[in-house]
Amino acid sequence: MQQALFIKMVIAEWDKQNNNFNKLLSSLSDEQLSKEIAPGKNTGIYLVGHLIAISDAMLPLLNFGEKLFPDLENIFIKNPDKSGLQKPTVSELKDHLKAVNTKLTEHIESTSPADWFKRHMAVSEEDFAKEPHRNKLNIIINRAGHMNYHLGQLILLK
Amino acid sequence: MQQALFIKMVIAEWDKQNNNFNKLLSSLSDEQLSKEIAPGKNTGIYLVGHLIAISDAMLPLLNFGEKLFPDLENIFIKNPDKSGLQKPTVSELKDHLKAVNTKLTEHIESTSPADWFKRHMAVSEEDFAKEPHRNKLNIIINRAGHMNYHLGQLILLK
Repeated sequence: MQQALFIKMVIAEWDKQNNNFNKLLSSLSDEQLSKEIAPGKNTGIYLVGHLIAISDAMLPLLNFGEKLFPDLENIFIKNPDKSGLQKPTVSELKDHLKAVNTKLTEHIESTSPADWFKRHMAVSEEDFAKEPHRNKLNIIINRAGHMNYHLGQLILLK
Repeated sequence: MQQALFIKMVIAEWDKQNNNFNKLLSSLSDEQLSKEIAPGKNTGIYLVGHLIAISDAMLPLLNFGEKLFPDLENIFIKNPDKSGLQKPTVSELKDHLKAVNTKLTEHIESTSPADWFKRHMAVSEEDFAKEPHRNKLNIIINRAGHMNYHLGQLILLK
């Protein structure tokens, strides 16, 4: 029972950050999102794409299936904002976010308590035997923190 | 055993953000910290004071004892950056941070697994009976997220 409670606490934190992200995104205009969060720093659209790319990459990492938008990684993770690579539009990114979150939520909700404590896909069975904290639930803790970090930046566009 | 593991996961995330905060703080000059993170937004020193004030307030919230620096709340939580209230110097804030973290860590390390799932001091026994996720461990999850949010802002001073 305490196990279920703990999982609920972690998922609730993840959901909260995702809700904050969605709310913030819908409150910013395309023009605001095209601006840099501070002079010479990343643009809003880059950070939005980056957060979606990281969420999309959680799908294979949690063994929930393939990425929905594998092209995002090159544009928003492997390369910096001013790479010259063509970015999707804000409207396309919003659609992507919705699709990724729908798939993620579906799988999160159907993951059993025991499954959350199994290894994620970026750690080998050997390493996991020595480092049991590198489980699926830890990915959720870590990614909620990562989202918080960039939400603190996106809010500056307001 | 799984209970000990997930407590470890949460504390590790908190420690990671605190280490990041300390590292970032020692890499920024007093002059950099006196600047706004973006035009018209909070200064570095305000955010540093804010994070220390929030950590200090965790002491009574987790039933670890009284706040060490109760004056910080008025300057860095209840009032905004440009309140006109006199702020401590960066050097004083760094000393405060060290003292707060020493006391927090000492208590965190001596908290038993069962204790982490007891209520924190801002929730009544009645409410806690209905909302058992409002426990001490949840404060750690929440405050690690809050720190991440502002670290995403402080990094802009670099």
